[in-house]
Amino acid sequence: MRTSRVLLCFTVVVSACISECKYHPNWSSIDSRPLPAWYDEAKVGVFMHWGVFSVPSFGETAWLWAFWQRDHVKPYVDYMTKNYRPGFTYADFAPEFKAEFFNPDEWAEILEASGAKYFVITTKHHEGFTLWPSKVSFNWNAMQVGPKRDLIGELATAIRKKTSLHFGLYHSLFAWFDPLYVTDKSNNFKTQLYPPAKAWPELYELVNNYKPEILWSDGDAGPDWYWNSTQFLAWLYNESPVKDYVVTNDRWGNNGIMCHHGGYYTCADRYNPGKLQNHKWENAMTLDRVAWGYRRTVKLSDLMAMEELIYQIASTVSCGGNILVNVGPTAWGTIVPIFEQKLRQMGEWLKVNGEAIYSTKPWSHQNDTVTKHVWYTSKKTGNGTAVYAIVLKWPTTNILTLGAPIPTSGTVVTMLGYAGSFGFKGIGQQGITIRIPVIPFYEMPCQWGWVFKLEGLKNAASKVGF
Amino acid sequence: MRTSRVLLCFTVVVSACISECKYHPNWSSIDSRPLPAWYDEAKVGVFMHWGVFSVPSFGETAWLWAFWQRDHVKPYVDYMTKNYRPGFTYADFAPEFKAEFFNPDEWAEILEASGAKYFVITTKHHEGFTLWPSKVSFNWNAMQVGPKRDLIGELATAIRKKTSLHFGLYHSLFAWFDPLYVTDKSNNFKTQLYPPAKAWPELYELVNNYKPEILWSDGDAGPDWYWNSTQFLAWLYNESPVKDYVVTNDRWGNNGIMCHHGGYYTCADRYNPGKLQNHKWENAMTLDRVAWGYRRTVKLSDLMAMEELIYQIASTVSCGGNILVNVGPTAWGTIVPIFEQKLRQMGEWLKVNGEAIYSTKPWSHQNDTVTKHVWYTSKKTGNGTAVYAIVLKWPTTNILTLGAPIPTSGTVVTMLGYAGSFGFKGIGQQGITIRIPVIPFYEMPCQWGWVFKLEGLKNAASKVGF
Amino acid sequence: MRTSRVLLCFTVVVSACISECKYHPNWSSIDSRPLPAWYDEAKVGVFMHWGVFSVPSFGETAWLWAFWQRDHVKPYVDYMTKNYRPGFTYADFAPEFKAEFFNPDEWAEILEASGAKYFVITTKHHEGFTLWPSKVSFNWNAMQVGPKRDLIGELATAIRKKTSLHFGLYHSLFAWFDPLYVTDKSNNFKTQLYPPAKAWPELYELVNNYKPEILWSDGDAGPDWYWNSTQFLAWLYNESPVKDYVVTNDRWGNNGIMCHHGGYYTCADRYNPGKLQNHKWENAMTLDRVAWGYRRTVKLSDLMAMEELIYQIASTVSCGGNILVNVGPTAWGTIVPIFEQKLRQMGEWLKVNGEAIYSTKPWSHQNDTVTKHVWYTSKKTGNGTAVYAIVLKWPTTNILTLGAPIPTSGTVVTMLGYAGSFGFKGIGQQGITIRIPVIPFYEMPCQWGWVFKLEGLKNAASKVGF
Amino acid sequence: MRTSRVLLCFTVVVSACISECKYHPNWSSIDSRPLPAWYDEAKVGVFMHWGVFSVPSFGETAWLWAFWQRDHVKPYVDYMTKNYRPGFTYADFAPEFKAEFFNPDEWAEILEASGAKYFVITTKHHEGFTLWPSKVSFNWNAMQVGPKRDLIGELATAIRKKTSLHFGLYHSLFAWFDPLYVTDKSNNFKTQLYPPAKAWPELYELVNNYKPEILWSDGDAGPDWYWNSTQFLAWLYNESPVKDYVVTNDRWGNNGIMCHHGGYYTCADRYNPGKLQNHKWENAMTLDRVAWGYRRTVKLSDLMAMEELIYQIASTVSCGGNILVNVGPTAWGTIVPIFEQKLRQMGEWLKVNGEAIYSTKPWSHQNDTVTKHVWYTSKKTGNGTAVYAIVLKWPTTNILTLGAPIPTSGTVVTMLGYAGSFGFKGIGQQGITIRIPVIPFYEMPCQWGWVFKLEGLKNAASKVGF
Repeated sequence: MRTSRVLLCFTVVVSACISECKYHPNWSSIDSRPLPAWYDEAKVGVFMHWGVFSVPSFGETAWLWAFWQRDHVKPYVDYMTKNYRPGFTYADFAPEFKAEFFNPDEWAEILEASGAKYFVITTKHHEGFTLWPSKVSFNWNAMQVGPKRDLIGELATAIRKKTSLHFGLYHSLFAWFDPLYVTDKSNNFKTQLYPPAKAWPELYELVNNYKPEILWSDGDAGPDWYWNSTQFLAWLYNESPVKDYVVTNDRWGNNGIMCHHGGYYTCADRYNPGKLQNHKWENAMTLDRVAWGYRRTVKLSDLMAMEELIYQIASTVSCGGNILVNVGPTAWGTIVPIFEQKLRQMGEWLKVNGEAIYSTKPWSHQNDTVTKHVWYTSKKTGNGTAVYAIVLKWPTTNILTLGAPIPTSGTVVTMLGYAGSFGFKGIGQQGITIRIPVIPFYEMPCQWGWVFKLEGLKNAASKVGF
Repeated sequence: MRTSRVLLCFTVVVSACISECKYHPNWSSIDSRPLPAWYDEAKVGVFMHWGVFSVPSFGETAWLWAFWQRDHVKPYVDYMTKNYRPGFTYADFAPEFKAEFFNPDEWAEILEASGAKYFVITTKHHEGFTLWPSKVSFNWNAMQVGPKRDLIGELATAIRKKTSLHFGLYHSLFAWFDPLYVTDKSNNFKTQLYPPAKAWPELYELVNNYKPEILWSDGDAGPDWYWNSTQFLAWLYNESPVKDYVVTNDRWGNNGIMCHHGGYYTCADRYNPGKLQNHKWENAMTLDRVAWGYRRTVKLSDLMAMEELIYQIASTVSCGGNILVNVGPTAWGTIVPIFEQKLRQMGEWLKVNGEAIYSTKPWSHQNDTVTKHVWYTSKKTGNGTAVYAIVLKWPTTNILTLGAPIPTSGTVVTMLGYAGSFGFKGIGQQGITIRIPVIPFYEMPCQWGWVFKLEGLKNAASKVGF
Repeated sequence: MRTSRVLLCFTVVVSACISECKYHPNWSSIDSRPLPAWYDEAKVGVFMHWGVFSVPSFGETAWLWAFWQRDHVKPYVDYMTKNYRPGFTYADFAPEFKAEFFNPDEWAEILEASGAKYFVITTKHHEGFTLWPSKVSFNWNAMQVGPKRDLIGELATAIRKKTSLHFGLYHSLFAWFDPLYVTDKSNNFKTQLYPPAKAWPELYELVNNYKPEILWSDGDAGPDWYWNSTQFLAWLYNESPVKDYVVTNDRWGNNGIMCHHGGYYTCADRYNPGKLQNHKWENAMTLDRVAWGYRRTVKLSDLMAMEELIYQIASTVSCGGNILVNVGPTAWGTIVPIFEQKLRQMGEWLKVNGEAIYSTKPWSHQNDTVTKHVWYTSKKTGNGTAVYAIVLKWPTTNILTLGAPIPTSGTVVTMLGYAGSFGFKGIGQQGITIRIPVIPFYEMPCQWGWVFKLEGLKNAASKVGF
Repeated sequence: MRTSRVLLCFTVVVSACISECKYHPNWSSIDSRPLPAWYDEAKVGVFMHWGVFSVPSFGETAWLWAFWQRDHVKPYVDYMTKNYRPGFTYADFAPEFKAEFFNPDEWAEILEASGAKYFVITTKHHEGFTLWPSKVSFNWNAMQVGPKRDLIGELATAIRKKTSLHFGLYHSLFAWFDPLYVTDKSNNFKTQLYPPAKAWPELYELVNNYKPEILWSDGDAGPDWYWNSTQFLAWLYNESPVKDYVVTNDRWGNNGIMCHHGGYYTCADRYNPGKLQNHKWENAMTLDRVAWGYRRTVKLSDLMAMEELIYQIASTVSCGGNILVNVGPTAWGTIVPIFEQKLRQMGEWLKVNGEAIYSTKPWSHQNDTVTKHVWYTSKKTGNGTAVYAIVLKWPTTNILTLGAPIPTSGTVVTMLGYAGSFGFKGIGQQGITIRIPVIPFYEMPCQWGWVFKLEGLKNAASKVGF
């Protein structure tokens, strides 16, 4: 583990090196690039999965094509058989992807209200359809089929104009049914037809045209040497127009790259390890537990309750992760009210409690040792380092016992969004009991998850950040 | 005003007369039929607007056809011009009304959870499309175009099998663009081509096939003598299979019938007069303020908040009305999560507070005279008559002052869903102040609208019911 | 058999009685009405089958619905299963019936060129779809679905303005899948829901709006007393705006009406009895042997060759019939070139040989007794009565031997379209041999069927006409 | 001009060199390859234009996309505006290209009956859609959109199995709206994105998978150095699996290649120069004068009459050309009867007169010098060289005067398909008058164009062939 002295040096080196170092096309060099600071500070992002799959909008949505025609999964085959003519092809869905009500300014307003600090959208999922007018996706892009609009370009403009969010782009390196990819795959990736024809030009177009602050690669379907991943990243870090601030993830090949190389680690969908990680990571999760794209059969019980979302935020940030909260827009271009509601509610919560989330560092403890459902974060303030205990279950006894903090005589305990401080007592060498008065509901600062701010702790020091 | 002694007699007469009296085809006879008791007891219903209009699912949805092609309202004309080929007709929407995910058992479960006691669905709106296989709507019914299912029959079965709700049917007497109706209308209803060809056979089919407990007529587009309304109602009350329990409303002609004749009064959409009425009435309102059918562009801010819904319930029931809460299902046959959520939340509220709603009678006061946002109901209990004060804004001073009740020494004040009783003091000749302790949020029985039950009041007596 | 003296009287009576007699609603009165003279003189008509069935345009086209969903005939079920989604309904075809290229003036030009003297078009086939904006076919008519045009009205105007053809309307009394008709049929026609709701209003609309010169009824699906056929015909003959000239056929009930009552007899599809009939009749036949509507899979070998068409014309007219030659327009509103070609070729043939067809009467013989493939007609001319021998196979021996004519010394033999007369010799008491010179091909008047005109025969007298 | 002695040598060299020479990627080497003999012998081919453009099937069909969206030609813009929704894209047509009735065996039977000796079909027109499952046309090929069949593969199999025709493939080098091509074009072809990504792989796929005997390139939209045309042709001639017999044309670049380099010359659509050419050429023409693809509005008068088609065949072959007769199949996979008829009539004519067409050489004269509408061909027979005079207008004077032939005493004049020989007389030094008896029409061998065979002429010698 690095010491804090090293940390300071490191930070200096980092800020220099993002823009001035030269990276080489190998993982040790690529991995040596420091993560641009904005990303760790942002903590919360919103993710959207949108594409032709938003038309059938069935089952695991974005995976329908593969489940139907590659894996022959019964509910998908049945759905297609029951609802479409025998000769119906996946491409036949595209004319119905009209996005006729798509208003990027409205999306921007919701995103701003959500409290998220960054936004990532699928520019091309495994179906291969590009939501921008890619030159290498003739008649299979949003300008030539369906919406007849540059969806990515319009979003880039609106998000940058109307919000303070960082703008990120998801890109699937592969496309299940592109014959070039199919050929390469059947040749065990010893041929390399698809990457130069499709994947690389797409990536260059995305970076050069839209200057994303995140490039969220999804490529767990072919080795890194097939994708020339390190060469691309070297260009991205050395020469691209976004080299000074771009952040990427770890999905650059299916040969042990994920969770080991690249930018931040995603490791798996809905990754939430529950303990501190020694490398910046992201919990990409989705409010609809079943699917990433909009699902026409979604039920209330399929959706994550706010309690669970707050748990995900708290536990993720506590352990050094960012959270990327996914919702799926409709084929007609809207964010349905249930998602709008949850995003706005997240924003209300963050408005009160964002101090405990944004720009925080992990603390020495993540979970409390005595009381479950308490997650810690920490942050330098004018008064030293504050520790935030995010309490997911309200203590009905009016006593909150925490095992990790070591109070001092200068310790002050408050609740974010609530006026006044609380009395407390130390417990032996480590631990504290906090007395909570009876608070009428109309004075509670929020509904789900409450943040106790502890200032002046003896063991306030944060862990190293990223 | 009738006295309570009269009331008792009246009730006896009523129950006899619903099934044994003979009604004549004139309003004075028709109006003399007592309202079957179940309806007034039920108080809360759920309404659904579903049809071909659920396909474009735009604007005021169910009114799209008229706004587009009859009234040439710009946003509708623009929508059609922008999104459909020039020769597109309204009938062309029908193949896309597939209801492919429609599962009436799932709807039934949600309805049961909503706390509603009755359900009304559009069997045919002004577009003329029949959701059942009507014999007089060749190729413009749900069995021959679109779903290929008897949607009404399936719902009737599911609702009756899975729930305790009463089952009601909405029916539009007219259809804007049926050439027979158009002809009659242009003849100032001096010809009568449409009623015998369409409206009457439809009504007989609905009553005979589905035995509705409510027949919710919508017919404000032609005089009652054109529709032969009283003749039909005489048959309905004298001979039909539902004569003993069917309830109807007041929309049987546009010549001053609405709000004056028929069963209960609806008077206007979203009718909520705010004071006690001397005839049973219904507040038919919709959670989406803009439209009755599902709207693809619905935003969170278009939807009634739970606070407002509880206000609607309280004020409606307090003034002698029933409330019919509308949501619009999708063309693919689902109830979207935001509506599911609101219906379930209504059910949660009613689970706690239903005692103050179901089977209640209006009290002598509706609004409190001192504190705003308080609505009263009353009900006979084992201990005399309880009065319920539905308090929509929580008193943050811990004192609730009510001007209407006259407490006695035997008065007991409790809150539904909360253990224990509250202290109080009388105020002069009339009025009471209730002391409310500080209640932590996790002991609050509900979130929106709290019911104070006042037993042993001096002025407990209910008003006459219907 | 009536004598020619009676014929003259009869003619006088006829012309008076069409317009002045009163007909009673029974067959003996209805049948007593003389056929308006124009019809027998016209001889050749063109028939068209057009409707929603022109969209699938498969198999026996106009019968697809019944073969698919009523009779479950395998090729139709297979076609639908293979090419449409499981829930596809017949009504779903209607939006594709666009007639976007329909130009009635172009049709009129082709009809005029065909040499036909009348035209009959399906206004409503057994599918029930009305090609005019019928008031009793809401959303199942060409104005409200599909073309959005009054196809019948446009054709009426064009045909009357641009051609000399008489304008006739085909109408199917029933509609297989109209629930009213289905109900009546399942009640053995003891209920009479469908005729007053649909069949009668349709007929009155057609007659009053379009004033057809032929009303070509198709109703072999219910007894005449169910259809009130004689009542309608009495109105048609006594009071309707077309009473002075309208012609009808014999399809007014399936209880022995066809071929026995009404106007002219059709008896069966493609009826061509091959011998003289004692009542005016019509051979309604179709150039595509397989179907009446346009068929997307039509092959050259399915189509009647010109030789066969000329045979049909000659044999039909010779035996006292009219011929009604059917072609099917496309769903997009055109007459395909192969039909255009055959109609124009018929016109070329009639231009040369029409003298032997139009306004002729049957002769004493129909087929020749010696030489096969010769059919006779006759006509009064300035020089007495001419007899026309229509020779379908050219005599390669240069001698044409005919057994029926009895030449006189004044007999003159010519060929229509060829200059000069031919030598001949009588054969015993009856018969003639005609000497035909070698004629180079470029002097032949036509390609298929040649007409020898025999003037001054001893046995020239025509048979009674109709 | 080469002499006949050279011709013999040349022929020897040719047959050796097609398979054994090595060709270099420059035009002088490429052009030195002799044309495989089968092509010149075949004379008559059938061409088909099929693709997504067969769906709108409007106007100049295959050019609709460019006329609509590139050139904004009014009738095309109007057609699209009137019949499709505003956001409709060209790609939206593809799902309607179903080819549901496509039966390659039926096509093969018609092709065999047409008398053609080769067949060429569009594998990809300027729209870019590939009728085979190309690896470089993801979701824009007949296997992944529309028919879901390898149309080219099925045709290759059927044609080879059921007919004696040579099988050829048309290929458009470019695609108007492929963004890669658009980019290259806007860069004046200084970038070369499109050829390696699309054009070349397509060509290799076609050659390797389907082994065409003709590769009919269409590439007048970029210079040969952009297309790497000579490199490709060197591969085609040296190494490809079809190197021993493949024939190509001259459309390999828009910088003066057409009509100057490559295989045979096409020079222009419908090229028919009317005089002898010194390089093998082809008249690619279409029976529908307006369009190459099937047109839904085609009228009889738009189609070439048989007289004109025979004129095209005679004049083309006489001048050293081959004729490639185009018809357009429908989107549903059929050849409509009018085209079937014309192809079968061509076959009937060639059955009688093919001796004067197939494997012939140009004669010293092409047109006769005295009588118009006479075209000559010639051919070695057992008896020396026969000269064929194809007479397009029958001499109604019974004397046919020809200015070019020099008869000898051994000259014999006959008519193909007619028994017996005709008398004649020489005219001075050059010329002949032939006496034609009166022939009854039923002894005429054919209807349009008659071939007089002249054997034993003094000036019989053929011109050099190709």
